[in-house]
Amino acid sequence: MTKIIGNALPNIPWQERPEGCTDVVWRYSNNPVIKRNAIPSSNSIFNSAVVPFEGKFAGVFRCDSKSRSMDIFAGFSEDGINWNINHEPITFEGEDAEILNREYRYDPRVCFIEDRYYITWCNGYHGPTIGVAYTFDFKTFHQLENAFLPYNRNGVLFPRKINGLYGMVSRPSDTGHTPFGDIFYSQSPDMEFWGKHRHVMSTVKGDDSAWQSTKIGAGPIPIETSEGWLMIYHGVLNSCNGFVYSFGAAILDLEKPWIVKYRTKPYLLSPQELYECVGDVPNVAFPCAALTDAETGRIAIYYGCADTVTGLAFAQVDELVEYIKNNSL
Amino acid sequence: MTKIIGNALPNIPWQERPEGCTDVVWRYSNNPVIKRNAIPSSNSIFNSAVVPFEGKFAGVFRCDSKSRSMDIFAGFSEDGINWNINHEPITFEGEDAEILNREYRYDPRVCFIEDRYYITWCNGYHGPTIGVAYTFDFKTFHQLENAFLPYNRNGVLFPRKINGLYGMVSRPSDTGHTPFGDIFYSQSPDMEFWGKHRHVMSTVKGDDSAWQSTKIGAGPIPIETSEGWLMIYHGVLNSCNGFVYSFGAAILDLEKPWIVKYRTKPYLLSPQELYECVGDVPNVAFPCAALTDAETGRIAIYYGCADTVTGLAFAQVDELVEYIKNNSL
Amino acid sequence: MTKIIGNALPNIPWQERPEGCTDVVWRYSNNPVIKRNAIPSSNSIFNSAVVPFEGKFAGVFRCDSKSRSMDIFAGFSEDGINWNINHEPITFEGEDAEILNREYRYDPRVCFIEDRYYITWCNGYHGPTIGVAYTFDFKTFHQLENAFLPYNRNGVLFPRKINGLYGMVSRPSDTGHTPFGDIFYSQSPDMEFWGKHRHVMSTVKGDDSAWQSTKIGAGPIPIETSEGWLMIYHGVLNSCNGFVYSFGAAILDLEKPWIVKYRTKPYLLSPQELYECVGDVPNVAFPCAALTDAETGRIAIYYGCADTVTGLAFAQVDELVEYIKNNSL
Amino acid sequence: MTKIIGNALPNIPWQERPEGCTDVVWRYSNNPVIKRNAIPSSNSIFNSAVVPFEGKFAGVFRCDSKSRSMDIFAGFSEDGINWNINHEPITFEGEDAEILNREYRYDPRVCFIEDRYYITWCNGYHGPTIGVAYTFDFKTFHQLENAFLPYNRNGVLFPRKINGLYGMVSRPSDTGHTPFGDIFYSQSPDMEFWGKHRHVMSTVKGDDSAWQSTKIGAGPIPIETSEGWLMIYHGVLNSCNGFVYSFGAAILDLEKPWIVKYRTKPYLLSPQELYECVGDVPNVAFPCAALTDAETGRIAIYYGCADTVTGLAFAQVDELVEYIKNNSL
Amino acid sequence: MTKIIGNALPNIPWQERPEGCTDVVWRYSNNPVIKRNAIPSSNSIFNSAVVPFEGKFAGVFRCDSKSRSMDIFAGFSEDGINWNINHEPITFEGEDAEILNREYRYDPRVCFIEDRYYITWCNGYHGPTIGVAYTFDFKTFHQLENAFLPYNRNGVLFPRKINGLYGMVSRPSDTGHTPFGDIFYSQSPDMEFWGKHRHVMSTVKGDDSAWQSTKIGAGPIPIETSEGWLMIYHGVLNSCNGFVYSFGAAILDLEKPWIVKYRTKPYLLSPQELYECVGDVPNVAFPCAALTDAETGRIAIYYGCADTVTGLAFAQVDELVEYIKNNSL
Amino acid sequence: MTKIIGNALPNIPWQERPEGCTDVVWRYSNNPVIKRNAIPSSNSIFNSAVVPFEGKFAGVFRCDSKSRSMDIFAGFSEDGINWNINHEPITFEGEDAEILNREYRYDPRVCFIEDRYYITWCNGYHGPTIGVAYTFDFKTFHQLENAFLPYNRNGVLFPRKINGLYGMVSRPSDTGHTPFGDIFYSQSPDMEFWGKHRHVMSTVKGDDSAWQSTKIGAGPIPIETSEGWLMIYHGVLNSCNGFVYSFGAAILDLEKPWIVKYRTKPYLLSPQELYECVGDVPNVAFPCAALTDAETGRIAIYYGCADTVTGLAFAQVDELVEYIKNNSL
Repeated sequence: MTKIIGNALPNIPWQERPEGCTDVVWRYSNNPVIKRNAIPSSNSIFNSAVVPFEGKFAGVFRCDSKSRSMDIFAGFSEDGINWNINHEPITFEGEDAEILNREYRYDPRVCFIEDRYYITWCNGYHGPTIGVAYTFDFKTFHQLENAFLPYNRNGVLFPRKINGLYGMVSRPSDTGHTPFGDIFYSQSPDMEFWGKHRHVMSTVKGDDSAWQSTKIGAGPIPIETSEGWLMIYHGVLNSCNGFVYSFGAAILDLEKPWIVKYRTKPYLLSPQELYECVGDVPNVAFPCAALTDAETGRIAIYYGCADTVTGLAFAQVDELVEYIKNNSL
Repeated sequence: MTKIIGNALPNIPWQERPEGCTDVVWRYSNNPVIKRNAIPSSNSIFNSAVVPFEGKFAGVFRCDSKSRSMDIFAGFSEDGINWNINHEPITFEGEDAEILNREYRYDPRVCFIEDRYYITWCNGYHGPTIGVAYTFDFKTFHQLENAFLPYNRNGVLFPRKINGLYGMVSRPSDTGHTPFGDIFYSQSPDMEFWGKHRHVMSTVKGDDSAWQSTKIGAGPIPIETSEGWLMIYHGVLNSCNGFVYSFGAAILDLEKPWIVKYRTKPYLLSPQELYECVGDVPNVAFPCAALTDAETGRIAIYYGCADTVTGLAFAQVDELVEYIKNNSL
Repeated sequence: MTKIIGNALPNIPWQERPEGCTDVVWRYSNNPVIKRNAIPSSNSIFNSAVVPFEGKFAGVFRCDSKSRSMDIFAGFSEDGINWNINHEPITFEGEDAEILNREYRYDPRVCFIEDRYYITWCNGYHGPTIGVAYTFDFKTFHQLENAFLPYNRNGVLFPRKINGLYGMVSRPSDTGHTPFGDIFYSQSPDMEFWGKHRHVMSTVKGDDSAWQSTKIGAGPIPIETSEGWLMIYHGVLNSCNGFVYSFGAAILDLEKPWIVKYRTKPYLLSPQELYECVGDVPNVAFPCAALTDAETGRIAIYYGCADTVTGLAFAQVDELVEYIKNNSL
Repeated sequence: MTKIIGNALPNIPWQERPEGCTDVVWRYSNNPVIKRNAIPSSNSIFNSAVVPFEGKFAGVFRCDSKSRSMDIFAGFSEDGINWNINHEPITFEGEDAEILNREYRYDPRVCFIEDRYYITWCNGYHGPTIGVAYTFDFKTFHQLENAFLPYNRNGVLFPRKINGLYGMVSRPSDTGHTPFGDIFYSQSPDMEFWGKHRHVMSTVKGDDSAWQSTKIGAGPIPIETSEGWLMIYHGVLNSCNGFVYSFGAAILDLEKPWIVKYRTKPYLLSPQELYECVGDVPNVAFPCAALTDAETGRIAIYYGCADTVTGLAFAQVDELVEYIKNNSL
Repeated sequence: MTKIIGNALPNIPWQERPEGCTDVVWRYSNNPVIKRNAIPSSNSIFNSAVVPFEGKFAGVFRCDSKSRSMDIFAGFSEDGINWNINHEPITFEGEDAEILNREYRYDPRVCFIEDRYYITWCNGYHGPTIGVAYTFDFKTFHQLENAFLPYNRNGVLFPRKINGLYGMVSRPSDTGHTPFGDIFYSQSPDMEFWGKHRHVMSTVKGDDSAWQSTKIGAGPIPIETSEGWLMIYHGVLNSCNGFVYSFGAAILDLEKPWIVKYRTKPYLLSPQELYECVGDVPNVAFPCAALTDAETGRIAIYYGCADTVTGLAFAQVDELVEYIKNNSL
Repeated sequence: MTKIIGNALPNIPWQERPEGCTDVVWRYSNNPVIKRNAIPSSNSIFNSAVVPFEGKFAGVFRCDSKSRSMDIFAGFSEDGINWNINHEPITFEGEDAEILNREYRYDPRVCFIEDRYYITWCNGYHGPTIGVAYTFDFKTFHQLENAFLPYNRNGVLFPRKINGLYGMVSRPSDTGHTPFGDIFYSQSPDMEFWGKHRHVMSTVKGDDSAWQSTKIGAGPIPIETSEGWLMIYHGVLNSCNGFVYSFGAAILDLEKPWIVKYRTKPYLLSPQELYECVGDVPNVAFPCAALTDAETGRIAIYYGCADTVTGLAFAQVDELVEYIKNNSL
């Protein structure tokens, strides 16, 4: 039976699967957990990242303003459900003014490695690329070099060094509403210089698994399990009325994460509820974070809904991995 | 007064026009009649075809899976409203493995001719084309040659030979989300070789009837009436936020069905209810089948809603034909 | 404190700001005030213009028919909320048959100048341009020359001559769903010949105010205030699932209206309610008229919702101008 | 026999039709008459306008620089063939700095009306529009208001007032390499305010005259003849390897120039010579000026070749008009 | 050694391979053999088809007029090199006015089967499709039904029935400058009804054989050889400055022509000469006919050059087939 | 007076500036120096790189095959003008089969650093990225990791470490004929991991320097001079008939090469000769290498012509740098 390799998190947000539901991932009944106007300036809060922090929870949130500018904000919670998000965006410290300059920031992820919390996000630097920073306390944030040249999105770190190198998956992109996109794995000795780029997985052409036929991108920090890295990722279908963002999951080799052992053919969750179908961008379910409790195997997934609000969904690791194996491409 | 030329169907699903409603086509109050998850594997069930069968009803249903692959499934119903759809897609028998090979299948129609039920659908064969098969019992299905070269969609048979030849309308298309499309009529001596292609009708440019200005395609099997073939068809408007699929109807000459006698300038039904406006493809009302009762002139139209669920709408043939004549382009 | 320069309108439609709401523009709680089917032939009624008229209210309404053709209709109201819209579109009188010929008409504005009501609208003349007409009584309408060459939309008159010339803002466009568009100011001695064209304002590139990054266009007749012309205008963001139409406002110099003194960085209202997000064109809030009461500073804004229905929103001029100044680009 | 209504020009550049040639318009054997590097800074000289001036010739030339910026330059010639073009672009005088501001200038035309030479050109003012200026001596140039709102190109004046108003044809366009475009006629009492816009002619869809199926635009100043205004214009075909610019001609009604009496179905000249087919923009023959001798009926047409150099072609007015009548759409 | 299965043609046009040339297909040194203005009305003559006829040669030629309309013309030659092309296009006889109606006609092929010459071409019928006609004498032409629904191009017949059925390859297309396209094989018992459609070959994605990566289409009538059907076909590469049309060849199974035995990885001839690179459509070499001499194995290929003129190239069947086998994908 | 910092190269290919020519870069009179068919398999040879080697010259050449596949080949020359290019493409050695796998290779550059020759090129690895290899002898080539994630092109190394790190400029791109593109500078301690990405320069919007308004990319290895790094680069203009590739030059700061000191507003050379205007891609002049003689200041630039052949042009460093300074943006 698959085990999460990690810490216990007894206070993980949780709700049992509803009666009659047979899905391996199910929604929280009080979704959305974060409303669009949760802070005074916000037009929408979504595609956000949370982590356990000092016995409670902290997070980095994408809050688009009423000017529709995109920035990231720190926030805190007792229970992972009710959040106090700062009213001002994160200010970064760092050495090079050119890197610190803010064009736009969106879709953050947070990853604890060794002694600190790393934040990665889509950072405007003459085009979208992957911004990297760290914090110890969610108060002071130190920004490092951008990981890659533009144009890139959905940069997601692995929670430990692998073969002595930091690992990050990302999706090379272009300057607009990119209609293509594969996931690659990159490596770094120092979080500053990146190389040894390996292709991980492509979109699935044809009819077999059309929810992921247009582009794919990693979601939460991959979860280490006894079966491999559990990587939840979004996939996009291009309907005649626009993109549909659903999510599925893959199992990657623990030591060579660019090797895909299993990968869901069906999606795990697609936009079907009104708060996922209607909003600033209709038909989006976009996961960016997951909490896990190694003790019970519980997983709580945070995902953006319609680029407007934030939802919560749940899974049991053993069931989920079993499902991925049994429904693999 | 217009009469349906055909059989009585006393058990046709039916609901009277709601008080105060003056529309010639009205919705069933319990729509959608088929929910998106009506079978375990389904993401959505829509654009489907039903027929009277052994005193009850049978049908072929487009069920997109949770992998978002598209296939067609047989189903049965006592009353035309509550359906038992098989959990496995149709398997076809036939002589040529190349034709039997499944790429994808969608948007079926079912047409009873002489002694059997013919199914046509959009069939992937190096691009979308029109698949053809027949069944006697909705258990065993025999697949014939694809009717046409790619790229084609919305192939709809006529329920009897005309001038000694089978007739089919279809919409030649391209490889993607085709932004153009007229209806043509093709003929065949044997359901294998097709020719004598005639243009039937075009989209309507300009402002006169903009709901059908981008592309059009036949819906249910044309209904033989004393006034001509009653062909219900969908039309598409290209708004700045995507396609809107509505439906109208035309009266075609009985012996030369490529001659359009009348054709609705207004739509008969456009996506206005939440289940038509919100879903995997917003703003779609897409009819694929109609039941008729020659006795009473009742028509029950099955139509896909938002590419997600299936709805039912009703009309009286005499009113409908009268309306088409009085509101013709 | 900012004052409206104009007449009192004691019977202006009005509703106080809801408890707890801190927005400077707030919605009417019974929105939409005009439903899509308010006249028998209408598919939708939206992007419409109202004015005080003989102690009550009159208006010109965009009613798209069930053929999805676009025309403009006169209507009358006792209270500005409940409207009787004529069932037949406006017929124009005039001298030149070529100008009177109707291709299509949409998005009207109504502006009282000196002794009569001028109507401007998007008029089909070998492409969209700005039609101009006047009426004294909303029964007889006299059509003048089109103001400009195609391709143009959103032509909005100023309510008095400035420097001895009539003034009109408009948005030069192209033949389709124009993905660009700035606001220009044009001048005329006689409502027939136009010239002295001045650029007023552009879209805002980048992340600063992305709600207005794709195209912008004037909405209601500009409101004369002690601080300058208050011009409410729509802006468009291009998401990966289509355009989002919000609205903001600018303060223009009273004597040189092409000089922008202030302009909102955040939107004032964006599509968030279901009737703004779901409809024939999802995610549209498009203002076309405003009533004002110089006595109290009340402003009632009429705006199209999802290109389907008409909504009403309110503001206080002093608060609104203060907000614009404090939140200017 | 058709007569030119105008002055004699005994020194018009001229070359008889080559032996064996049956074309009604024939090329000068020493083409191109102006080479791409005729002034030190020039990358190319083309789409330029010449007029008789003080017994000799003057002109305004489009010279793209080696920075590929576009500006217009005055030039002078004894014989209309050998030209001295100023090394510095024209500087305009005028009253409003905003209008005088240079974004870019290209494709000039020159038209003598009453007592002065008017220059019109494609003028950058927040997009392309029609700049207007006049000169008496080709040394001092006075710039007036832009005639129209953007987006417009190919503004060409008529050489006298018609019905007491100045007349100009132009082609409303968009912001890029416009793939559409009709010719309209506009009128002005004072060269400042323009109105009474009339549609003149459209592109020709289908196969009948495909050389003018994508866009059309006026070329030289229309030539007054006993049969009507002789308007030489370019037309564009969209091949799978780009646009092909050819030219033809139309006869417009003398008093209502928006009425087309005849219009060539075949082109008069299409890019076939190496200097027309190869250059910065392959396959362009683009006429911008014509000299005429009323005495002999000779016409000398100046046209841009491949957006790189300037060519000269000849015709006899009677033959040309006869041909237009006999080969009219 | 490969043999042509067919007749001797002692007077086949021929020129030996130039000294030093090692190519398996070589150009005629006096190319182009047909100039663009070979008949008075022609703008260009290319993509044309020739056959042996009464000891001499006849052909059907695409002559685009100076109106740039596209039609097909009969022509005759003593030697296959010097051609007399009729000045009027072919008029077709037939039974159905709708089929006879001419929209446009281009890219003809001519195929002798049993007792007559069949002509196929791209025929405008509410979009491009394959027109079919026959003649006995190149004077009277009888038009049959269009073979397929639109949208199709490059329909090429086989010179004998195969398995009792006529065979035709074609390329399903769309309404514009189609950027995709595979070759399919269709069958008919009677030249009227077509079916049993089989996919033959696709474009080649990636770098292996990029000259045929965008679209492909059959050229001359396939040549029956002891090794299979020798099908010369064009392929298209999409450069950043447009399409490049080259040609290669394939060997198809004699009894199942949809089975590709060999297919050239390199092109046989690509546009490199000035008359192939410069013209109305730069960079086109497009073969439409081949003469063969079974006695000597000589092949003379006629191909359109730059959509402007017609060229001739030569090959030896044994060398050519050997080359195809040795350089197959 | 500007000096080249580097070695003498007495045998640099050279030809004095032609009489009467005032250009600062002039063409070799016997261009093209490498013909398209210089090796048996080649369709075209262009965009290639040469270096001094053992008193003579060696190079790496892009030879597109007659299959239109793209690969790179070693070659040798006594004089830099007459080249012997290997008939087989380079085979790379290396450790990781995934990296060694060849998808396609094009547009090589060669850079001598310390003790070896590094080759960089556009390397297919699930999209275009920058391949890196080194050789000591142009016989054995050792391939390293790709420098970046896809999608990237025009990766050009600096000839020495700067601040202890290797430096490379490149242009992030997308998957197709990228219509955008800026130059960035990246750094590496070991030629394996890359980071510290800095934006160097953008395209120039508007009319000022339109030859570089669409995309730009570095050409030859930057030349170290007393004034800074002399970087010759190509720029692209998007005409209505496709891209035009010209080249100019910039002076970069010696220690912070992302700081642009000067940059040519005019191009240095644009496609004007027939071999630059006509070929597989019309209108391309694309420099990839330069030889320099520090003694005399001579520079010999190798550039691809029309993506078909290779040309040679010359400059004097002092004149060139002077020109760049005097004609800087």
